[in-house]
Amino acid sequence: MSPRIDALQYANWSEKIFRQMREGGVDAVHVTITYHENFRETVLNIEAWNRWFERFPGLIFQGFGAEDIDLAQRTGRTAIYFGAQNPSCIEDDIGLVEVLHRLGLRFMQLTYNNQSLLASGCYEAEDTGLTRMGREVVAEMNRVGMVIDMSHSGERSTLDAIARSTRPIAITHANPASWHPALRNKSDRVLRALAESGGMLGFSVYPHHLRGGSACTLDAFCTMIARTADLMGIERLGIGTDLCQDQPDSVVDWMRAGRWTKARDYGEGSADNPGFPPMPDWFQGNHDFGQIASGLRALGMAPGEVAAVMGGNWARFLAEAFRPARTLQREAAQ
Amino acid sequence: MSPRIDALQYANWSEKIFRQMREGGVDAVHVTITYHENFRETVLNIEAWNRWFERFPGLIFQGFGAEDIDLAQRTGRTAIYFGAQNPSCIEDDIGLVEVLHRLGLRFMQLTYNNQSLLASGCYEAEDTGLTRMGREVVAEMNRVGMVIDMSHSGERSTLDAIARSTRPIAITHANPASWHPALRNKSDRVLRALAESGGMLGFSVYPHHLRGGSACTLDAFCTMIARTADLMGIERLGIGTDLCQDQPDSVVDWMRAGRWTKARDYGEGSADNPGFPPMPDWFQGNHDFGQIASGLRALGMAPGEVAAVMGGNWARFLAEAFRPARTLQREAAQ
Repeated sequence: MSPRIDALQYANWSEKIFRQMREGGVDAVHVTITYHENFRETVLNIEAWNRWFERFPGLIFQGFGAEDIDLAQRTGRTAIYFGAQNPSCIEDDIGLVEVLHRLGLRFMQLTYNNQSLLASGCYEAEDTGLTRMGREVVAEMNRVGMVIDMSHSGERSTLDAIARSTRPIAITHANPASWHPALRNKSDRVLRALAESGGMLGFSVYPHHLRGGSACTLDAFCTMIARTADLMGIERLGIGTDLCQDQPDSVVDWMRAGRWTKARDYGEGSADNPGFPPMPDWFQGNHDFGQIASGLRALGMAPGEVAAVMGGNWARFLAEAFRPARTLQREAAQ
Repeated sequence: MSPRIDALQYANWSEKIFRQMREGGVDAVHVTITYHENFRETVLNIEAWNRWFERFPGLIFQGFGAEDIDLAQRTGRTAIYFGAQNPSCIEDDIGLVEVLHRLGLRFMQLTYNNQSLLASGCYEAEDTGLTRMGREVVAEMNRVGMVIDMSHSGERSTLDAIARSTRPIAITHANPASWHPALRNKSDRVLRALAESGGMLGFSVYPHHLRGGSACTLDAFCTMIARTADLMGIERLGIGTDLCQDQPDSVVDWMRAGRWTKARDYGEGSADNPGFPPMPDWFQGNHDFGQIASGLRALGMAPGEVAAVMGGNWARFLAEAFRPARTLQREAAQ
């Protein structure tokens, strides 16, 4: 049976949520462990995760390689893969890519809305494309086997990363802008380039990325997935819910404003609607993960295609993406 | 064939030295990566090692488990295991034990000459034994599978660590004080307690630990090993040369004084003899590792015993010591 994989969550982790992952049959999750944190702060977040792993070994464990998805399925637990939404965790030090990879970081966004040392975010007026350091870091991520994630990046930077990366990249949590023209959603041009390079798109359930916001129906969401299959090919599609289950609104403030502004930044929200938007009624949390599969089946999608979108495609992609070039080198030396 | 293992070196690493490791048939080395460095500084040292591994994959690779000693033998390379001579790398944060273990730290001294947050060093007038944090860190090191090393610790702290640790500990680089009464060498009481608990002693070739210093003969050194076998049992003995090959004297100043004093501390040296002492003529570097085996054979030690002291004993000890309790837990959950 294909695994079920969620390619992006940033929940307020708890035993309740880990149990709901089991309820929803979520075999693997890419979890955000850091936004604007520097390296030492990111390590503190890893330490907090190590305590979760120690407390709930029957529910979750840390994923390092793609084989841990199989292990999760065999043992009825959820494999947790670490990711960074912003490269502040590597500071200005390319050596931290390998160090964080060793600690389990398997995804890193090159930007989070703003300009970073590596590339431009989707909220910047000017998009530099990959910077000098950005090009170096892309090569280093390629080498160690860390997925380049451009979910929050600008158009030019994203196209640049697709072109420069020697391995397929991912947009773990976004939807097509042609369906819902949010700044965070992606143009058909980007989606086509992503698909042609063997990359993956994870569909987001975050209301600001949905046509109709919190009121978006399951049918509308699943129809959007089917349309995107026409554009990108079904094998390039997965889920990346962007679920921020049980997070207080103070967390969305940190996500948006970090330490880069003294003013309040509303990101995808607004002064009228500054907090986390309510999730659609058909996706309230991890226990609802199977709802998406039901919605796809209800559209008449073939079972094999549903399984591919629900996680089979991510599993195939990650089996390649997580394999370090270094391992190959080490094997060659034997 | 038994592997050859050196349980402590802190050389000024270079391609030359890595080639001499091969020449001397050294299959595995515990290398010091940090003395007084804090966590971030220690990570910078790991980054420097990552570059060595990337540059010389045909000569060295990072060891994580004991099976990497076999891999080293099979592939004609040297497995490099990281260690800390002082616990400053974990700062005041017990979570860093697991983080550094993940990065490959496999040995940590609880003290380096002075009082630490964990225990007392061998140069302190008062020895507290394990502190409150020290007892917690010992349990955590036991859990993750990091070797407790008491080479530079005081007598009471060492006995305390032997008693409190649920797994055998090591003194990776020291000699019996009964042979040469240096503060860094160990009393028969400590050596007996170490042996009874299943721990290991690595014999040091650092001149300040040798009777006669730099003039100590190979025969005298090997005779001391044979005498210690009478006290501890041959299976508790290995080599830990404390080799500081090619290091400038500025490094011994850092080792001794770190940032804890504005004055100059001479450690085992003196104002007359402040730098690194010259190594004995029979042990000038890694290429001479086999000299010790020759010396032991010349004494009439049986070939099996020579092989055990040269690395077989360390290999057996490390196979147990490196196995994380966490792995057992994870396997149990499957």
